[in-house]
Amino acid sequence: MQRTSFADMHCSIARTLEIVGEWWTPLILRDVYLGLHRFDDIAENLRISRNLLALRLKHLVDQHIVERRPYQDRPARYEYHLTPAGRELVPALLVLMHWGDRNATPPGGPPVRLVHDSCGESFTPEVTCSSCGAEVTAATVTARPGPGAAAGPGTYVLHQREHAGR
Amino acid sequence: MQRTSFADMHCSIARTLEIVGEWWTPLILRDVYLGLHRFDDIAENLRISRNLLALRLKHLVDQHIVERRPYQDRPARYEYHLTPAGRELVPALLVLMHWGDRNATPPGGPPVRLVHDSCGESFTPEVTCSSCGAEVTAATVTARPGPGAAAGPGTYVLHQREHAGR
Repeated sequence: MQRTSFADMHCSIARTLEIVGEWWTPLILRDVYLGLHRFDDIAENLRISRNLLALRLKHLVDQHIVERRPYQDRPARYEYHLTPAGRELVPALLVLMHWGDRNATPPGGPPVRLVHDSCGESFTPEVTCSSCGAEVTAATVTARPGPGAAAGPGTYVLHQREHAGR
Repeated sequence: MQRTSFADMHCSIARTLEIVGEWWTPLILRDVYLGLHRFDDIAENLRISRNLLALRLKHLVDQHIVERRPYQDRPARYEYHLTPAGRELVPALLVLMHWGDRNATPPGGPPVRLVHDSCGESFTPEVTCSSCGAEVTAATVTARPGPGAAAGPGTYVLHQREHAGR
């Protein structure tokens, strides 16, 4: 079945999902970030079919989220590493992970503990305001039309009204 | 085709995706958050099939991310609202949105401008350390085994070694 494409939506969440929203893809990015750079290691760790992993990695390479780096000449072999855009996704993965720690807690508690190298402490990721630094919650954000706002398929028009997210 | 379930993975990203990783689901949450609470409004805005929307909403209600609230008696009609767990997902959506604004920019620029009600300023969401408050990036985080770490399907074992995310 042909899936609806989100690529033309005037919504940056939709366009992000078009790139990284495939089932498995966030876990592939997690593995690459955590240090699994070789196809066989990722396939074994995720117990994902090799066909599917190859498809997902090709898409991530095409979208410049992951890059291939040769590590062997004959035969040619490649490792997978995050690009700068891929590395920018890591904080988003950490925020999803923290939500899961709280709301879909695995038996035994959070599987991963995060340490912030800059301060040396264990931490949980918080989403904060670039202007005042305070934490951002659903209750304290208002979404307004931005420069690229437009009516169209899948576009929320913000109804020409203020929205307080409450 | 039966999709692999992530629900039993010892990974909070996987368990989160099991709940909210379905294609369309993040956009449904976006719409509910932005103030579309009725089935017909969401269906029309997303141009999603009504069958699929009903399935996705049922899953979100079953998982306590979205709740139904009656707004009419005869016939019974319901609105959809985010639960507290659903509202906790909003900052994660904002972080994904910001990534898309930067890395998958729609024509014309970001479709949405965020205002932080607490300080009144336009802002971009940042992911910061709960301990020191500084921004968290892929380069400044080390993932270590947490209390729920375990070897198993789809589990990254963290290789009994420190990992610097570089």
